[in-house]
Amino acid sequence: MNFASDNAQPACPEIRAAVEAAAEGPAMPYGNDPWTERAVAAVRDTFAAPHAEVRLVATGTAANALGLSLLTPPYGAVYCHPEAHVYEDECAAPEFFTGGAKLIPLPDRAGKVAADDLAALLAVPQRGVHHAPHAALTLTQATEYGLVYGVDEVATLAGLCHDHGLAVHMDGARFANAVAALGCAPADITWRAGVDVLSLGASKNGAWACEAVVVFDPTKAPGLEHRRKRAGHLLSKGRFLGAQMAAYLEDGLWLRNAAHANAMAARLSAGLAALPGASLVHPTQANEVFIDLPAPVVDGLEARGFVFYRWHGPGTTLLRLVASHGTLETDVAAFLDAARALA
Amino acid sequence: MNFASDNAQPACPEIRAAVEAAAEGPAMPYGNDPWTERAVAAVRDTFAAPHAEVRLVATGTAANALGLSLLTPPYGAVYCHPEAHVYEDECAAPEFFTGGAKLIPLPDRAGKVAADDLAALLAVPQRGVHHAPHAALTLTQATEYGLVYGVDEVATLAGLCHDHGLAVHMDGARFANAVAALGCAPADITWRAGVDVLSLGASKNGAWACEAVVVFDPTKAPGLEHRRKRAGHLLSKGRFLGAQMAAYLEDGLWLRNAAHANAMAARLSAGLAALPGASLVHPTQANEVFIDLPAPVVDGLEARGFVFYRWHGPGTTLLRLVASHGTLETDVAAFLDAARALA
Amino acid sequence: MNFASDNAQPACPEIRAAVEAAAEGPAMPYGNDPWTERAVAAVRDTFAAPHAEVRLVATGTAANALGLSLLTPPYGAVYCHPEAHVYEDECAAPEFFTGGAKLIPLPDRAGKVAADDLAALLAVPQRGVHHAPHAALTLTQATEYGLVYGVDEVATLAGLCHDHGLAVHMDGARFANAVAALGCAPADITWRAGVDVLSLGASKNGAWACEAVVVFDPTKAPGLEHRRKRAGHLLSKGRFLGAQMAAYLEDGLWLRNAAHANAMAARLSAGLAALPGASLVHPTQANEVFIDLPAPVVDGLEARGFVFYRWHGPGTTLLRLVASHGTLETDVAAFLDAARALA
Amino acid sequence: MNFASDNAQPACPEIRAAVEAAAEGPAMPYGNDPWTERAVAAVRDTFAAPHAEVRLVATGTAANALGLSLLTPPYGAVYCHPEAHVYEDECAAPEFFTGGAKLIPLPDRAGKVAADDLAALLAVPQRGVHHAPHAALTLTQATEYGLVYGVDEVATLAGLCHDHGLAVHMDGARFANAVAALGCAPADITWRAGVDVLSLGASKNGAWACEAVVVFDPTKAPGLEHRRKRAGHLLSKGRFLGAQMAAYLEDGLWLRNAAHANAMAARLSAGLAALPGASLVHPTQANEVFIDLPAPVVDGLEARGFVFYRWHGPGTTLLRLVASHGTLETDVAAFLDAARALA
Repeated sequence: MNFASDNAQPACPEIRAAVEAAAEGPAMPYGNDPWTERAVAAVRDTFAAPHAEVRLVATGTAANALGLSLLTPPYGAVYCHPEAHVYEDECAAPEFFTGGAKLIPLPDRAGKVAADDLAALLAVPQRGVHHAPHAALTLTQATEYGLVYGVDEVATLAGLCHDHGLAVHMDGARFANAVAALGCAPADITWRAGVDVLSLGASKNGAWACEAVVVFDPTKAPGLEHRRKRAGHLLSKGRFLGAQMAAYLEDGLWLRNAAHANAMAARLSAGLAALPGASLVHPTQANEVFIDLPAPVVDGLEARGFVFYRWHGPGTTLLRLVASHGTLETDVAAFLDAARALA
Repeated sequence: MNFASDNAQPACPEIRAAVEAAAEGPAMPYGNDPWTERAVAAVRDTFAAPHAEVRLVATGTAANALGLSLLTPPYGAVYCHPEAHVYEDECAAPEFFTGGAKLIPLPDRAGKVAADDLAALLAVPQRGVHHAPHAALTLTQATEYGLVYGVDEVATLAGLCHDHGLAVHMDGARFANAVAALGCAPADITWRAGVDVLSLGASKNGAWACEAVVVFDPTKAPGLEHRRKRAGHLLSKGRFLGAQMAAYLEDGLWLRNAAHANAMAARLSAGLAALPGASLVHPTQANEVFIDLPAPVVDGLEARGFVFYRWHGPGTTLLRLVASHGTLETDVAAFLDAARALA
Repeated sequence: MNFASDNAQPACPEIRAAVEAAAEGPAMPYGNDPWTERAVAAVRDTFAAPHAEVRLVATGTAANALGLSLLTPPYGAVYCHPEAHVYEDECAAPEFFTGGAKLIPLPDRAGKVAADDLAALLAVPQRGVHHAPHAALTLTQATEYGLVYGVDEVATLAGLCHDHGLAVHMDGARFANAVAALGCAPADITWRAGVDVLSLGASKNGAWACEAVVVFDPTKAPGLEHRRKRAGHLLSKGRFLGAQMAAYLEDGLWLRNAAHANAMAARLSAGLAALPGASLVHPTQANEVFIDLPAPVVDGLEARGFVFYRWHGPGTTLLRLVASHGTLETDVAAFLDAARALA
Repeated sequence: MNFASDNAQPACPEIRAAVEAAAEGPAMPYGNDPWTERAVAAVRDTFAAPHAEVRLVATGTAANALGLSLLTPPYGAVYCHPEAHVYEDECAAPEFFTGGAKLIPLPDRAGKVAADDLAALLAVPQRGVHHAPHAALTLTQATEYGLVYGVDEVATLAGLCHDHGLAVHMDGARFANAVAALGCAPADITWRAGVDVLSLGASKNGAWACEAVVVFDPTKAPGLEHRRKRAGHLLSKGRFLGAQMAAYLEDGLWLRNAAHANAMAARLSAGLAALPGASLVHPTQANEVFIDLPAPVVDGLEARGFVFYRWHGPGTTLLRLVASHGTLETDVAAFLDAARALA
């Protein structure tokens, strides 16, 4: 049983069926197909954003880097969490797509960025042309630690940004998990709270390979179409992406999958936290559990074939456990039973 | 019936079945899965190149741009045909991935680049640091005009390159069509003839979205893995790419699909060339037909619902007709019947 | 005697005196000094352009590449003469500064670009996202062949550009020579004729190292200040640049130097063209002479120690002779005497 | 009197005389002149490095960014002090020149980077392709806070780097001040201690605008010549740079100027530190003084026309005072007298 990553699952049955159904007859290539049209409409409907510019790509790194490239000049400063995926896990993709912008980490505040730190940074006058000028803030929702920014948190951070001329990007690789946790309208936690561009993930939550770049303010999108093409992210058979995203959003699949993953993570979290010697490092708000367990428990689980990350490398005991659309209740029960037996 | 592009077809049944079969159980993400391993082995076997570095991506533009980025410094000159896809149809992707290298067109010689022109260019001493230094040649096989470079042609061009320190890249978006036409071993028309890096296409010939960057000389590949990642082309669910490429190559599907497409193009070409007023602009060597037809024939075909490109824009009569794995004999017959009736 | 390049001369006495005069007392660095202020004012006065944005740099390549980076997105197409300095002699600097834009050569028409060719190119509809979109035209004034575009020529070319949404850049490394030849107001051949950004050269015409990027439409300049800095072209001791440009423009030195250079070139051209077997390849309109001379004459001149370029490499007989502010009448006379003796 | 920056002074008389002396007769452009040859020889002699590759540029930002571009792939990680000039004051120039590498700050340890922090970072295994791979460390000598790394410190840091495959760059904008303070051989604190590439500054210490990129291991230099050109940093009149650097190094001017500046800073530091309420923030080891003074003293000094930076912005009382080759003993005495009167 694999708790290492929400990428370890194959696509879910509904997405696979949608792709298969799209394999019918000729269609114009490069996104000029009916499935892509449906997908764009579904994104706009989901976000109550009829004028949003929407482009589909195959990876979250591409979505993030393209989105950021719309929000900063090549010499701009983009602020982020020090463990943000864009900073730590994308091998300098944002720097590449932006043409050399600087990603600058804000302090880590229990897994999030804090408005106080951003406010303090923005209060310091910039040193003229010597400093990379403020360009954007990027937030991850849900965060790399499975935390969820509330509507007020996003609005406060975005408000500071807009007051100082910065744009706001949201890395929503696990956006569905955040919305399922918050129970709010997707618009409330994005454009209504001040988010300018969203990377809307599907790959971690049931798709084969599909993410949307969503530009809520279309005046910020003029370069998106060309930037996607020159990055090699315009698929010739656009229907492959379109069919996935349409199926993901049209009838609520995205939130059903995410709610299931969140529930499985909550169950894991509660069960493990009750063990002697266990220490939950972050509250479990979405589909990831960060918990420190006694070394014999961790070793034993590994010996029994359970797959997960030791977050700080071999021999360490802080675990990241990720639940997904494909995590079975029986998987969770088996894991908890084994852990209890080892504790 | 759609003759506009080999991208207009969905994936072929064998590829779709392979992807579906791969949707089973967890697998480690980011290409660390058994399907990717099989795909790499299949590429190496196909090319009798056991040490080749192979990476899978979802688009031909990504494969070309990544491949070129291994062969030129950011200030290098890459020579190409003036209508090469990398020059005309990739929205400056090679410039982006290489960090600013110059693509410089050689003269068009009936749809190909000619060794004489390359030799003449290389015979001129470079003007020191002012000029972008020679870095690479890129050839398209089969070409944008459906022509096929013979083994001797590639060897002569590549020999000139290597004598002058240039590397050789091959854009093989339609490589299968070229090999099916030549009937040679894949190795003979690539590394044995001097090709350093190949973009091996599958998307136009049966896959959903899959191409391989094949680096025959692994000493030229050290940056490939990181360059793919930072371009957002490392898919999290690597099995989606691996399953396609494995199915494409393992049992000859790639050549069966290509041979069929070539045969359909040949039939179209022969039938249309026999019409009064028809003028074949290039010989039909792979799966594309470039033919000038009388305006009433063209208009009539369009009016009957046949889909194809007027190559020089609306109102012009030079047609590009592309056959693919999915082109039916009955499609070809219907097209030819209609053309004959109109002629 | 050196006719190889207008870069072979040291700075002229007036410029040297101005730099020495500026070496007095402390001044705020990074362009916040009175000499830079004077230089900016002098540029604005010279061009009757009180709102122009002006930045000084040390090289023409920097000026050109910075100027172009304001006029194209990183995926745009910039059209130029096939032997333009930006295309042939700047080692891909424009590609670097623009982040990967494509420089695309127009046909050579007797050393210039022609409006008919540009019009034909712009009349073809672009192929959507596949093609690098039209962004700008760059003209060289005077050209690499010592030719001068007339006011009407520039206006026609620029008018075509603006009608199709392209911006216009002028490489004015030898702008002074062009204005001295045309006898027009600097404004007439630049912004009044539709030029958006000018590289105004001084280094070839008397300065040590100084060029100005002049943005006539300040709405196009917002990134210029930061782009100059991040390219390492903001000198700490700004007065070194400011003193040169102020001295160059304030009392007409730029036109005196250029008129002298043009006159020396005209004298060379007339004298050489009268020799038997001589063939002037381009009319001599500014400070460069392109002339084919009999091989014995060329060999003899070289043997006598005259320095010049054989334009097509060793052994060829098409010469480029460049006159400058420092070319003496006696140099020209000596050269002509020697040539006549050899003819 | 200006203590704001060592850039506030004009060039020193010796450098000015050398430039004037170079303004004699024609010379081949683009660095093919005798002064540049002398400068390169002088750098090699100074560093006992006869095979070093040396290129001259006009700014420190250019030297740093070019140097780093030789030491990292476009997706590499370059570690630095969080207040390093390359990180804070070059408007993303390193990111630009490297094609998108990441500058990653190490912790600040009293104004330096510490070997323990670097060792800890390098001890963590990298997360495969997701992380920007380790590429280089850059040290500033003397640092932004006027501190000097000892030979052992550099050797320890560089040893760690080389053990883990990282290269070492040194930003030597104030290298002369460091060598004057250390009293060591230039080779001892650079290549013998493990430095691969040095930015050797002259602009802050007497030159108009001149820095050298010094590549001690010439196998790391193959791209330097072209990279300088495409960045617009190859001056046409190379003698302007060559004459400065030759005069700077050939007879010890660089160390005389630096020793004077250091002595003036030491005198300032000692005098101010003795005032009631004064607090020296960093020891004064080179030519910069960082000292906190009572607000009335600071206000009074400003009111009397002394020019300096309040380091943390208007109203703050931590001052940076910079002495230079041009700082007079009478300037220092006047400043100290005024401060004492105000204290």
